[in-house]
Amino acid sequence: MKFTNMDIISMKDFSRDMIDHILDTAEKLEPVARGKERSDILQGLVLSLLFFEPSTRTRMSFESAMVRAGGSVLNMGSVEASSISKGETLADTIRVIDGYADAIVLRHPKEGSARMAAEYSSVPVINAGDGAGQHPTQTLLDLYTIRRESHLEGIKIAIAGDLKYGRTAHSLCYALSLYGADITLVSPESLRMPEEIIEDLRSHDINVYQTSSMEEVISDIDVLYATRIQKERFPDPTEYQKVAASLKIVPQLLDEAKEGLKIMHPLPRINEIDPQIDETPHATYFRQSFYGVPVRMALLSLVMGREP
Amino acid sequence: MKFTNMDIISMKDFSRDMIDHILDTAEKLEPVARGKERSDILQGLVLSLLFFEPSTRTRMSFESAMVRAGGSVLNMGSVEASSISKGETLADTIRVIDGYADAIVLRHPKEGSARMAAEYSSVPVINAGDGAGQHPTQTLLDLYTIRRESHLEGIKIAIAGDLKYGRTAHSLCYALSLYGADITLVSPESLRMPEEIIEDLRSHDINVYQTSSMEEVISDIDVLYATRIQKERFPDPTEYQKVAASLKIVPQLLDEAKEGLKIMHPLPRINEIDPQIDETPHATYFRQSFYGVPVRMALLSLVMGREP
Amino acid sequence: MKFTNMDIISMKDFSRDMIDHILDTAEKLEPVARGKERSDILQGLVLSLLFFEPSTRTRMSFESAMVRAGGSVLNMGSVEASSISKGETLADTIRVIDGYADAIVLRHPKEGSARMAAEYSSVPVINAGDGAGQHPTQTLLDLYTIRRESHLEGIKIAIAGDLKYGRTAHSLCYALSLYGADITLVSPESLRMPEEIIEDLRSHDINVYQTSSMEEVISDIDVLYATRIQKERFPDPTEYQKVAASLKIVPQLLDEAKEGLKIMHPLPRINEIDPQIDETPHATYFRQSFYGVPVRMALLSLVMGREP
Repeated sequence: MKFTNMDIISMKDFSRDMIDHILDTAEKLEPVARGKERSDILQGLVLSLLFFEPSTRTRMSFESAMVRAGGSVLNMGSVEASSISKGETLADTIRVIDGYADAIVLRHPKEGSARMAAEYSSVPVINAGDGAGQHPTQTLLDLYTIRRESHLEGIKIAIAGDLKYGRTAHSLCYALSLYGADITLVSPESLRMPEEIIEDLRSHDINVYQTSSMEEVISDIDVLYATRIQKERFPDPTEYQKVAASLKIVPQLLDEAKEGLKIMHPLPRINEIDPQIDETPHATYFRQSFYGVPVRMALLSLVMGREP
Repeated sequence: MKFTNMDIISMKDFSRDMIDHILDTAEKLEPVARGKERSDILQGLVLSLLFFEPSTRTRMSFESAMVRAGGSVLNMGSVEASSISKGETLADTIRVIDGYADAIVLRHPKEGSARMAAEYSSVPVINAGDGAGQHPTQTLLDLYTIRRESHLEGIKIAIAGDLKYGRTAHSLCYALSLYGADITLVSPESLRMPEEIIEDLRSHDINVYQTSSMEEVISDIDVLYATRIQKERFPDPTEYQKVAASLKIVPQLLDEAKEGLKIMHPLPRINEIDPQIDETPHATYFRQSFYGVPVRMALLSLVMGREP
Repeated sequence: MKFTNMDIISMKDFSRDMIDHILDTAEKLEPVARGKERSDILQGLVLSLLFFEPSTRTRMSFESAMVRAGGSVLNMGSVEASSISKGETLADTIRVIDGYADAIVLRHPKEGSARMAAEYSSVPVINAGDGAGQHPTQTLLDLYTIRRESHLEGIKIAIAGDLKYGRTAHSLCYALSLYGADITLVSPESLRMPEEIIEDLRSHDINVYQTSSMEEVISDIDVLYATRIQKERFPDPTEYQKVAASLKIVPQLLDEAKEGLKIMHPLPRINEIDPQIDETPHATYFRQSFYGVPVRMALLSLVMGREP
């Protein structure tokens, strides 16, 4: 499989075989990501981080992946974004940065900007979120977490929260459709998953259920993936309070859960998960966050031609 | 002595033996800190710097210590602090960062935050200042400076400035009490050292004097430690001017000083020391600032299990 | 030639022999700057970047140069500048940073600040722009570009844009005078090159022409160096529009150009060059930007005593 110089823009660019290969590579590199094993596979290589909006944990996760494997990072600095882009097109910025590094990680508020950047860059571009668009490394770390902590093939998963606007949920659904899955979508009526995504899932022979009730699904699932619900989506604050409360994961909800249930969340969580859950074996979200490091290390080594 | 994985939160956690060991280690590493000797004792290790308020020189001093010894740093970036902590508890932030690094340096405006962070972190946490609380690496570098440039045991020292609110002065007094010392506290009436600290010093058989006059003490001391006086402490600006002038270190004050007198200051200085002093052999403050590098390098190597 | 510990403040400090040596060194290091060749010539060394105003591309170019050659960087962070300098003199800041690094790159809004910093620093200081003053590494990379892509000796060059205030143009003119050159200055009447610079060029036997018309010069030159024209210089916006349009480099202008004409620009460009030029062989500005990396790597290795 040939990843060298590949741009990582959208999950739709990946076949199942490609994803498997990335996850296998991540597994191989996990001890390096943990700092348990030394590796120099990225030594001498430079990664440029262009964050046109702040996303501290994504940035630090990429940086950790890079330096743990012996590489170096250059930071544009999200706050200075305005200075580099003052009156300059993104295309020009990319062609300049292109001369400083062996790969570029781009976070940009505008959908489609990563794809556009890739056209102007001679080095591989990794999309770290482009507005309402894609954030493929988040999905890859979600898949890695599911595989690592449970199993991917035919997983029974519930995805809860704002399914209408949440790109994390959309992208994960698509990726899961490559592995076969039983997906229950839990959201208030007003934040249902878009119909075209549901149809796409069904065309891949995925069982899809929709509900507004966590209680209804909790006993039957292997993974519960919670995502944020933004207050701003609700014209009426009481309506928000009601929905948020009904989807909040609290200890009593888990009484009926399978012993091996894994609870995931892309973080930061606000009110979606009661801190009392943190001490239970179900809490997977902090490990999930860490798994971003081996997954990004795998991607970086693959696209820069240093497969371990 | 076992430092591996120890959190560095407060000077009160250290015995005199422990401090001696840190200072000995720092002395061993000083040539590395100067760039005169190469060392890879921290190679492969990653340090996360979480500065929730800016403190550029402390941060750069830690970074220098880390990279001089072959390690790597990840920066949250003080300005982005708001983004990582947006609606997220410090506990969650720490548990995420924990997955990226082998140790965490934390600067936070809230007293007690470092101790709390240490509870949630699996890697060692070093307190780089928590509000009105502790800043132990400042005190350790102060001790190193005194030992390196004069002597610790039974030192005759005057500490001048705002002794009521200055955590630097409080923490240094405590540490000196472990070594025996003659301490003269120089401050205006309104900014006297809190009574409980003075009692604590006396209970350790430390001689403590209080005065408002620099002239009175200058001939008898080995070290003069000046700290900042903040204008905001004074309701009346003329009163501030008067006090600041009376404590300012000027050339004529030093006429009566011992030849070997060392003048220290945690920096930045504003008006406390006349720039004419810089060229005298008494000026120790810039070397003191540099000594932060070997001291922090020593701490980092000790808590990450790479004692040199 | 002895560069070790030399401060890099102004082009006027360099003889032609010194410039040649820097450019030769840059050429030797170009494969390292491209990431095609590994080098550890700067290993174990630390570079401090003090940017008191943002200049993202200059900073990242220095960082890339440093890490590509195995060194490490410490960033003050332009935005935090206010914190480190809060009430502190630049002299004090420099004496503190001096203890953290093996060289300092300084960007500061005040003319003369780099020279002043060099006086207080024990390690070499590189001026990365001091207000209306100097930015010698920009000029060195301009010279490198001309030599690399065309030829330096007796070059026929047109420099266009705001020649009255543009320090890039002033500094480049001075440097070219060391090599012999035919210089055509293209600007509106109101933004003519200062008379004393023109006299200085002529005293070096440089042919200097002045015009307001690009068309007039285009067929006869080897290099066209475009610089920005700032709207703010014109009291009347229509006047600005007219001037900007007349100096804009558009495809039809190039009909009469020599085949080997190189178009340069310090970037970011705003409206000075039509994007359609980018695809022509004349477009040299993105490579020019990259050449900053080998040139800065050469300077860094020379002043830190690690000549390759």
